[in-house]
Amino acid sequence: MSAFYAEETPAAVRNAKGLHLISTLSPNGRKAHIYLEELKDKYGLEWTTSLIDLDTAEQKKPWYLKLNPNGRIPILIDNTQSPPHVVFESSAILLYLLSSVDKDHIFGFSDPIEQSQLTQWLIFWHASGQPIQGQYNYFRRNAIDESPHAAQRFKNEVLRIYNVLEIHLSGKYTDSPREYLAGAGKGKYSIADINAWGWLRTFRSIDLGEDDLAKLPHLAAWVDRIADRPAVQRGSGEWYDEEKHPELLIRTE
Amino acid sequence: MSAFYAEETPAAVRNAKGLHLISTLSPNGRKAHIYLEELKDKYGLEWTTSLIDLDTAEQKKPWYLKLNPNGRIPILIDNTQSPPHVVFESSAILLYLLSSVDKDHIFGFSDPIEQSQLTQWLIFWHASGQPIQGQYNYFRRNAIDESPHAAQRFKNEVLRIYNVLEIHLSGKYTDSPREYLAGAGKGKYSIADINAWGWLRTFRSIDLGEDDLAKLPHLAAWVDRIADRPAVQRGSGEWYDEEKHPELLIRTE
Repeated sequence: MSAFYAEETPAAVRNAKGLHLISTLSPNGRKAHIYLEELKDKYGLEWTTSLIDLDTAEQKKPWYLKLNPNGRIPILIDNTQSPPHVVFESSAILLYLLSSVDKDHIFGFSDPIEQSQLTQWLIFWHASGQPIQGQYNYFRRNAIDESPHAAQRFKNEVLRIYNVLEIHLSGKYTDSPREYLAGAGKGKYSIADINAWGWLRTFRSIDLGEDDLAKLPHLAAWVDRIADRPAVQRGSGEWYDEEKHPELLIRTE
Repeated sequence: MSAFYAEETPAAVRNAKGLHLISTLSPNGRKAHIYLEELKDKYGLEWTTSLIDLDTAEQKKPWYLKLNPNGRIPILIDNTQSPPHVVFESSAILLYLLSSVDKDHIFGFSDPIEQSQLTQWLIFWHASGQPIQGQYNYFRRNAIDESPHAAQRFKNEVLRIYNVLEIHLSGKYTDSPREYLAGAGKGKYSIADINAWGWLRTFRSIDLGEDDLAKLPHLAAWVDRIADRPAVQRGSGEWYDEEKHPELLIRTE
């Protein structure tokens, strides 16, 4: 059995106690930041943060791949476990915090049927919305002239996925409009919402066109409803910005 | 509150008792079939199945969108709940069966750390492997001349993702080779494996090239190890083939 950390692992990671987040200010990072901030407000949760230096591709180096072979952020390291327990995949981080910290199910459900709804919408977004919106962003920014077919394909699919959320929130087929993605009745704000909001917060500014956006009034109201939360604002803000907090950056030679 | 089913909902769905699966012989369908077959072997689980007619796009019709606004298969309806509980997203179906049927954690874990590993690899595959392999299949089959850049992009990304699994199974950075994706030591066969295998079973026949495949020996051994299981063979086989079992097809006018 080799050592848990590599020799090159930065001291800020190696010496961390309790929960340690390695992240950056990105849609996937933001999900974890927001839930940690919500848990701070409700439970007084404490953790430490390192910001990854994407310029030096730290997340593709062996010390990081030893923690997450997928080479992506965010990861959460729980140093209260022995050996420390590493969680990668942003949705899995939310689920781990829900079961290990959020004992009162404030951002989840004790009822297994409602919790199953949460799981479905969490996975729907992570598996459909997120990769498709990511590919759409790539093609519209970098390859729209080279691959117009692909750019249009992913734009259409982003709109289809947004419409799935609009159907769900509007109650189009159920006659039950909703405020949040999971839970009985109008639903309850949960990690299913946090998970999708990290990406959907910018849905008005990704070149979709006014006509298309006008067809998503329930989705728009949902985005704005969540944006008002203090923890959401802190989780999206300057504490996780490497320009504002260079002391949190980790970098190896 | 509107009725749970629409007027047009086929009788085979509307009148089903207990667990009812709506599926087809596809990678995502196969995940659910395999786990149900495993649960039959271990617990004597019973369920009924309807196969969707993709030719008439039943899954895009209002009766189906009322059950799953994403318009995709598979879905599982638990008629022991009132109202019936619908589960969409194939990974969420596996998690629902794990918590509601697999009480001995035969294909999951009672230990929360091992269960967190399961969740991570389940989501990794559903969120990275599956959508990227799906896009790769689209571009290599339908648009390789029109969008060679996109076809190459997704081929590269499929290989990157397969290599993440190879790193994990080989123990490249941990000195601990594994037989299965989640669990202590060499791991234990679980729904994390079922989830990925539904897609990876055909990894040798998606135009990746002999040189690339030769770099994935641990992944290849994992695919073959799982393929040997009787429930895996039944779940991938003729019972779920609409050509062999037209009596299971549901179709509305």
